[in-house]
Amino acid sequence: MFSEMLENVRRKRPLVHSITNYVTANDCANILLACGASAIMADDADEAEEIAALASGVNLNLGTPNERRILAMLLAGKKANALGIPVLLDPVGVGASKLRTDAARKLKAEIKFTVIRGNLSEMRVLSRGGIQSGGVDSESGLAEGQISLGDRLARVKQAAAEAGTILAVSGEVDLVSDGHKSYLIRNGHPYMSKVTGTGCQLSALITAFVAANPDHALEACAAAVAAMGLCGQKGAARMSREDGNATYRNYIIDAVYNLDGAALDQGADYDVY
Amino acid sequence: MFSEMLENVRRKRPLVHSITNYVTANDCANILLACGASAIMADDADEAEEIAALASGVNLNLGTPNERRILAMLLAGKKANALGIPVLLDPVGVGASKLRTDAARKLKAEIKFTVIRGNLSEMRVLSRGGIQSGGVDSESGLAEGQISLGDRLARVKQAAAEAGTILAVSGEVDLVSDGHKSYLIRNGHPYMSKVTGTGCQLSALITAFVAANPDHALEACAAAVAAMGLCGQKGAARMSREDGNATYRNYIIDAVYNLDGAALDQGADYDVY
Amino acid sequence: MFSEMLENVRRKRPLVHSITNYVTANDCANILLACGASAIMADDADEAEEIAALASGVNLNLGTPNERRILAMLLAGKKANALGIPVLLDPVGVGASKLRTDAARKLKAEIKFTVIRGNLSEMRVLSRGGIQSGGVDSESGLAEGQISLGDRLARVKQAAAEAGTILAVSGEVDLVSDGHKSYLIRNGHPYMSKVTGTGCQLSALITAFVAANPDHALEACAAAVAAMGLCGQKGAARMSREDGNATYRNYIIDAVYNLDGAALDQGADYDVY
Repeated sequence: MFSEMLENVRRKRPLVHSITNYVTANDCANILLACGASAIMADDADEAEEIAALASGVNLNLGTPNERRILAMLLAGKKANALGIPVLLDPVGVGASKLRTDAARKLKAEIKFTVIRGNLSEMRVLSRGGIQSGGVDSESGLAEGQISLGDRLARVKQAAAEAGTILAVSGEVDLVSDGHKSYLIRNGHPYMSKVTGTGCQLSALITAFVAANPDHALEACAAAVAAMGLCGQKGAARMSREDGNATYRNYIIDAVYNLDGAALDQGADYDVY
Repeated sequence: MFSEMLENVRRKRPLVHSITNYVTANDCANILLACGASAIMADDADEAEEIAALASGVNLNLGTPNERRILAMLLAGKKANALGIPVLLDPVGVGASKLRTDAARKLKAEIKFTVIRGNLSEMRVLSRGGIQSGGVDSESGLAEGQISLGDRLARVKQAAAEAGTILAVSGEVDLVSDGHKSYLIRNGHPYMSKVTGTGCQLSALITAFVAANPDHALEACAAAVAAMGLCGQKGAARMSREDGNATYRNYIIDAVYNLDGAALDQGADYDVY
Repeated sequence: MFSEMLENVRRKRPLVHSITNYVTANDCANILLACGASAIMADDADEAEEIAALASGVNLNLGTPNERRILAMLLAGKKANALGIPVLLDPVGVGASKLRTDAARKLKAEIKFTVIRGNLSEMRVLSRGGIQSGGVDSESGLAEGQISLGDRLARVKQAAAEAGTILAVSGEVDLVSDGHKSYLIRNGHPYMSKVTGTGCQLSALITAFVAANPDHALEACAAAVAAMGLCGQKGAARMSREDGNATYRNYIIDAVYNLDGAALDQGADYDVY
């Protein structure tokens, strides 16, 4: 039950260490607090290992990368691996530059990630190479339309099995798989692509859920994906005529703050394969 | 017609690459999404050229500068020039430090800017030198009062002609000129100076408008200035007794999200010279 | 009277230079504008001294530290000392890493701070050493419960006397002391710990109040602490059923924007010792 995953976050209040871009860092910290977790941000190599060692989950996000921040990610991720702390990779904009692509591949090669989360084009670049365009908040509707949902699910499942990690692929429909069991999640709202960093926020949220449920990482990840999408729906339902994406941003985080286990179980819309 | 400028942004969804300060980066990304553009932020020299090459417009903002970010601006701006991509400079706080003043002048010397946008004191420092004080969000009412509006317009026009670029000078009244044709725009609201980064947001917005209307850069720039000011008015009209500058920040971006061409044409308050 | 402290901020509009973390920088700038101050952020060593010299108050915040930003803090703080400009230290997360602990101690040793503000665990680490865990936004309720309020007040007073600075210790009850006179302030709301950066915002606010009242630094600091807590209460009173921590963040800053001297005097809840 997804409710239990959420309730464990609220009860255990896991500390999540995020090394993340400066564009959406504030929203990531507030969504962590909203779900009941604690947040610490520390992106310098001089303290990344120590901060990771204090945390119950580590969230690595490739937005606004630079050599120093990437080094901090490597150190924090390896420390997390050594201590058995769950660690997530969000390869924001991978494929848009050599710096990001090389960093994402190096991180993937040297760190055992509990979860890798991105949109379809990012995940495709990370597995196969190639270049994306269209901005880090862009919808990938066109690309999604090119292959059937069943094929996509099969590919994500296979990629997860090959990588030995949970993959969470965001899109019109979200897919979460560990290579053995897969969730197809229909929560979410198209407006979410009009708020910068909803993907980054989801990655922070997943990290908190997995940190609080380390023995049920796949279900925790799926619960976080459903929770984020459901809160996107709840936020959209709350919008009035004059509201736009700035207010919507607040409504999504507010909805996470007010979400309880019963509402999550009731609103989650998914199938398991 | 300004409406066409806006509608082209919504239709073409130009990708805007911003190298900008971390104080207002989130608002800049959200206002870009609000107007229909896509946003990518990347401020490291290791990827600045590649990201700029993917974009339809490049927005360089001198807030929270450092040597590395300034180098990224130089590289991104030159790449934009080489590829014919519109590029904007927002010389935030120029005159407040040697670092900013030197960087602004170097950028101005080595890059052909489509638009330079700033407040009156910043524009003055950039053309003539001198020191400003009063904070990056400060109104320049006093300075504006010292010379007549007609004189100011003449000076901006001359400075634009000399620099061979569009100048957009923010103040109680906004002036936009390419040295041949000038817009005097009366939209805007005094509350806007109480929200950090409305200038940065305007610069992002202008970049999106110019990116979507490269053959009508002057009119696109003026349309963006009018749109931002009009949304400042709409946001102020929406404020209730308990609202303050934090809610107002959201209302401005919300208003951009909901602005359509007809409302822009109806609300834009300007003269052309 | 606290009202006078606030009214001096609104009248003098002091420019506050903040060297602060990228997670909460936007909120810090907006709360400075909300209280009537002006804001400038500049975190590079190449301009830290010049920017500090333009300011009426300097706010040094140890969140997301790195070697370069710490150097900027040292330079800005020393310049502020040389020019008699009030300077505040917020040792965010001190004790969580060697980098932060060393930096906080070095800053404390080399700069004469007008005010040092933090939560109880941070203040304890700064005086005595030790390790904290629990995230930078964490409540320290448990630790607080371990010693009586009277004992805590006595210790803060003594620590302030030894350090020769004003200490502002945030907790369920806030304590402000210069070693001679002490304020025990009961304003505030538990929800505030659910918004990232309310501590950072308070540090910015204190800097503005002290900058506008340099000859009454202790009372100015206490007034800012009471104002922040009162605005936390006012924001909480405004919350509706669907609001959460994102909207609450806005309500707090909105309340600061709308706070006047009479309301501050009426709502401030404190004792002087």
